[in-house]
Formats: sequence, C-alpha cells, structure tokens
Amino acid sequence: MTKGETIKCKAAVAWEAGKPMSIEEIEVQAPRAGEVRVQITHTGLCHTDAYTLSGSDPEGAFPAILGHEGAGIVESVGEGVDHVKEGDSVILLYTAECRECKFCKSGKTNLCQAVRATQGQGVMPDKTKRFSCKGQELNHFMGCSTFSQYTVVSQYSLVAIDPKAPRDKTCLLGCGVTTGWGAATHTANVEKGSTVAVFGIGCVGLAVLTGAVDAGAGRIIAIDTNDGKESWAKKFGATEFINPTKLGDKDIVSHLVEITDGGLDYTFDCTGNVKVMRSALEACHKGWGISTIIGVAAAGQEIATRPFQLVTGRKWQGSAFGGVKGRSELPGIVERYMNGTFKVDDYITHTTDLDNINKGFEYMKQGECIRCVAKMS
Amino acid sequence: MTKGETIKCKAAVAWEAGKPMSIEEIEVQAPRAGEVRVQITHTGLCHTDAYTLSGSDPEGAFPAILGHEGAGIVESVGEGVDHVKEGDSVILLYTAECRECKFCKSGKTNLCQAVRATQGQGVMPDKTKRFSCKGQELNHFMGCSTFSQYTVVSQYSLVAIDPKAPRDKTCLLGCGVTTGWGAATHTANVEKGSTVAVFGIGCVGLAVLTGAVDAGAGRIIAIDTNDGKESWAKKFGATEFINPTKLGDKDIVSHLVEITDGGLDYTFDCTGNVKVMRSALEACHKGWGISTIIGVAAAGQEIATRPFQLVTGRKWQGSAFGGVKGRSELPGIVERYMNGTFKVDDYITHTTDLDNINKGFEYMKQGECIRCVAKMS
Repeated sequence: MTKGETIKCKAAVAWEAGKPMSIEEIEVQAPRAGEVRVQITHTGLCHTDAYTLSGSDPEGAFPAILGHEGAGIVESVGEGVDHVKEGDSVILLYTAECRECKFCKSGKTNLCQAVRATQGQGVMPDKTKRFSCKGQELNHFMGCSTFSQYTVVSQYSLVAIDPKAPRDKTCLLGCGVTTGWGAATHTANVEKGSTVAVFGIGCVGLAVLTGAVDAGAGRIIAIDTNDGKESWAKKFGATEFINPTKLGDKDIVSHLVEITDGGLDYTFDCTGNVKVMRSALEACHKGWGISTIIGVAAAGQEIATRPFQLVTGRKWQGSAFGGVKGRSELPGIVERYMNGTFKVDDYITHTTDLDNINKGFEYMKQGECIRCVAKMS
Repeated sequence: MTKGETIKCKAAVAWEAGKPMSIEEIEVQAPRAGEVRVQITHTGLCHTDAYTLSGSDPEGAFPAILGHEGAGIVESVGEGVDHVKEGDSVILLYTAECRECKFCKSGKTNLCQAVRATQGQGVMPDKTKRFSCKGQELNHFMGCSTFSQYTVVSQYSLVAIDPKAPRDKTCLLGCGVTTGWGAATHTANVEKGSTVAVFGIGCVGLAVLTGAVDAGAGRIIAIDTNDGKESWAKKFGATEFINPTKLGDKDIVSHLVEITDGGLDYTFDCTGNVKVMRSALEACHKGWGISTIIGVAAAGQEIATRPFQLVTGRKWQGSAFGGVKGRSELPGIVERYMNGTFKVDDYITHTTDLDNINKGFEYMKQGECIRCVAKMS
C-alpha cells in the first residue's frame, strides 16, 4: 500500500530549457483534498511539450515534469474526491472540467477556470507542489505532468474511462486527437455537405479530417508542404490534397477560392504559423466562411488581416481541446473507439518508453512521425 | 410624362477627390431592362460618402454622383421589373437583394452578389452609365447615387415601403440605422440578459444600442472619446457611458474586463479605427465573447491580435448593412417605425438641401452631428 505515503518513482525531469530531459528518481507526495494520484501507464508526446522544453514558451517554468497527453490508473484519491476511485482507468485532462464555475455552467465553452490560474503557474490549486527531486521541488505542467510514473492532479483534471480500453492508445484522447476532431464537430460545427480545408496534416490536422468526415462534409481538402502527408490525409478522409509549395506563381488562397467557387465553408489552421492562419481565414467563402485556429503560435506572434475580410462575412475563431468537455464527453468518445467508429490507433507511428523519452522527441522532428506514445510503467 | 426619356435635373457632382461637390444640371437616361429610375426626395449623408469624396478610398472613381442613403419615388421602370411600379415610395439599397444568387439563397448572408462587381466599378449591371454632365459620363456610386434628383438603379437595389412613411426620415434606413441595429439583432444575435459594449457613438453606434435594447441585453456600455455623446447614448438605451481618455493609467480593455467580471458577451466597433477594433475584441469575455466590426477602416489598414485571444474562445466577425436583407426586411422595419417601436427621427440633428449639400458635410465633421438629411426635390 502506497496510499497516503510519498511514492518514489522514475520521471523525466526537465531541469532547464533547451536541454534533453533527465530520467531521475523523484518523490511524489500523496494527494491532498480534491486531488488524485495517478500511476501513468502511457503518455503521448505533443508539440506543446517540445515547445515548452525548447524554452520558447515565456511562461515555461523549470525544473518541471512535462507531458499532458496521458492515461493511467488511479493510485489513491484525496479527501472529498468522489467521481474517481482507486483502480479506475483514467485519461488526464489539461482542460479541466469542474462543472461548478461560471465557464462550465455557461453552456458556451469548455474552458473551465477552476484550476486555470494555478495550472498556469505550475502548482496545484493550493499553490504548492507534489514533486521533488534531489531535494528540489519540481513544477507541475498543464495540470497533468504525465512524464512521470506517478503524478498528482486536481480531481477536475481527469476522467474515468472504460477499463477495457487500451491506455497505450486512449492516452491520445487527452490532447491531439480530441482537439482536432472536436474543432470540426464542436467548435466549427461543420455542416453536412459543406466544404472544408485543413492546413497542416499532423496528428491534430488528421483528427480535424475525421471530424469533418463525421460531420458529413462534402469536400475535404488537406494542405501540407510535405507530400508524404497525402496518403495520410486520404486515409483519414481527405478528398483532395494540395502541396502549396507546388502551385507555381499562384498562392494557396487564390487557388482555393478558385477551385471552390468562392472559398471554403470551413477552414482550420493546425500549423501554429500566423501567416497560415491568415491564409486559412482569407480562403473562406465570403458571406459565411468560418476559420478556426487550433495551432499554437510562437510567443508574441500576431495574426492580421484587413477588417474587410470580416465585414464581408468571414468569421475568425479558435478552439482549445476541440471545445470538448473532458469529463462529460471522453467516456463517449472512448465508447465510439471501442466499437470501431472512432480512430485512435492509426495516429501512432512510433513508440518509446520512459528511459528513451528524449528519443521520442527526436522522432517528432521527423516528417513521418504523427504521434509517438511512451510506455511509462 | 418623362417615361422613356432622358431627364434633366440637378445633382451634386463630385468632379474630383478632395474638392467640394458642384451642383450641376445633369442628364439621367431612362432605365433599361431590370432597372428603375427613382426621383430622390431625401438622402442621408454618411461618412462613407465623405470618405470617398476625400479621395482616401482607392477604389473611388471620379467624376461621380455619390450618396447611398436615400429614399424617393419610382419615376419609371425598365422592362421586366415587377416588384416596384411608378409612384411607389422606395428606399434605395446599397446592399442589393436579388433572391436568386448563391448568396441570397444560402440563408447565411445578406451579401447579394447579383450587382456586386459592376456596382464596385461605378457602372450599371450592363456595364454602362446613366448619368452625364457637360458631355461627360458620371460614375454611379454604391449602386445608388442618391445625391441627384433622379437616379437609375438595379431593380435589386430598392424596396417599396409604406407610402405613408415620411421619406425625410426613412431614408436613414438605407444605411446607418439599419446597419447598427442589425449588427446587434442579426449578425451578433445578442442574447437576452447579456452584456454589450459599443465603441463609437455616432449614428451606427446609437443604432447598435437600440438593437441591444431590442434583444434584451442586460448591461449596455457606450464608449466614446466625446463626453457629449453620453446623453445621446443614454437616450438610446445605454446603461453606462465611458470616455476611455479619462481612465488615467488604465486602458479601456482592462477597465472593461474588470467592471464586467471577465469581459463582455458582445462588443461592436463603430469607429473604423483598427486599434479600437482590437480593443473591442480583447474586451470580450474568454470562452464566448463575440466582437463585431461594423466600421470601415481606411485603405490598407489591418487588424491584429494574438491568436491566443481566439483560441481562448473569443470570436471576431463583421457586419455589412447589419446582416439585413433589404427587400425582405425593410418594409417590416418601416412598419415598426410607423407604430412607434423603432427609432428613426431621433438620429437627425441637421437638415440641408441639395444646393447646400456641401454644408451638410461640414456639419458631419462636428461632434454634435449625428445625421444630416438633405431634401433633394
């Protein structure tokens, strides 16, 4: 029994920005009131982790345990936690869901604010930390810190799922897959028969394609500068693929407007590049086209366009975690996955383990890596 | 009977950019198939006319007959015109409604494209002009050219209204009043009990206030740098007034976010200033705030923000003619005006006539002028 005690386990510690993580023995305190300690069994590696590790994120605080796309088993729960219990199979949620705050109750957004401020500061809701290594406290990350064999999270930051669902796959529902799919089905609410363009065909872009397919879109155009993504895009439901670097003198916006008789009904940016975000907006159809930003831009970068683009009926919006409420909706998505109507396995091109987690980040820099999953314990 | 013949009448001719208009005798040809000749009785003066006259609009073509906020009486109709007839009291529509194009049939926008391209070029749909003066052809403007005693417009660019409605008032429904009101009720679809902020309290801004009142908004904040607008704003339904130049060190965005517990549900820019457009977006509530751009920015200017503003749930959109379909909806608005539930008279602070129309534009530069209406014939 480890309940109530500090656990010693292995974790990948990000001691400082711009350096590989170190595999260390760390100490993980017991969960306090409203908290849950989870044994992480699997975690996906996401570009947001890489971005923070690189030091480009001005809010990144070190040393820290990174990782936010994880699944595991509840080891123990703190006082007052009643929606998960020891032994539950869970997915961690970097977008929490408390069901009590103004945001949760609004019916208009999934951006629960219950743990937002402290999550952004790398601490638990009571402003303290549960991790230490060599006598030094470690920061939490995105309310999850899945790059450890054990982590402590807010009770609002995890959801129990079907224990039969394989966590080496379902961990991806903690970020990339849900984010892309939900951006199409929830945030943009793609209409049946409509036209869709997706800029950037990584894990999130592929998931947007599946969302557009689910919504019954009539024409789904995938756009990427890497030709290798064409077969991926087609496998995930794209009806067309365009490499914008191969259009000669023509820019991607005018090409898209031309081939769609005026522009797209829905576009999605999954690149994080602010110039691409502008192209995605301007490729929208006058009068009603909606462009949704999913990608995370580098610090300080700004999007811009002529206001005329909006006055003539285009809408510019964004999506975080696909507009999905994690506790309310992930169990249903897992159910769809289990009955074969929701893709998850197909995104995984690479696997690694905790000891070789840095190697996973090397894979991610390669064009052929869609998602790498690390076995943690 | 003037039917079928060229009419000689007076008009304000804009010979060149940056100069006052000249009152001239001009010739107005008979309407061709699908066209209508209208005796303009009254026209509002709008900032868009002033903007084009100033030469700042790179697409402004001279010489031209400006004016687009007009009302009058149908003098004669061309072949195939069946929805208006001689003697009808009409309002001209710079946003046409053909009911046949992809846009009209979409159910998603009021931006009819039937006459769009030729309208932008200052010509009739058959690419010719109906106006001449001293042997020189004059350009049409915004499909209306109301600064003339007679004009010729597409049959899609006017709507017959209750003949008892006073045109010296209803002419304002051709632009400013409908634009502001509709932006709140149609484009943003303001919810009952919500919070609203309106930046820029001219005619359009005041009309947004009335739209917010109609929609049942709970808190309506008017923002203008001119303190003289406070009493105007309150009269039109604002619950609060803020002069952003009097906030000391605090900027308007953080002030608004603070006093509204997180930001507004809906904001509207009626200034045309791209910096204000950014403030209007960023003053929106995280998770669901929607900012609607109504103002027309100067040529080449761009709006910008960090994409994070959108990813965290704010939406950026625009509105043209308030999202209102002129032929379908103006008769109902006129009906509301006639039964006393829709303000129109209250916007008119100044009147002038055709001979003194330049004086009207001088009035408009004064802070106390909301709208000036010119009697034309």
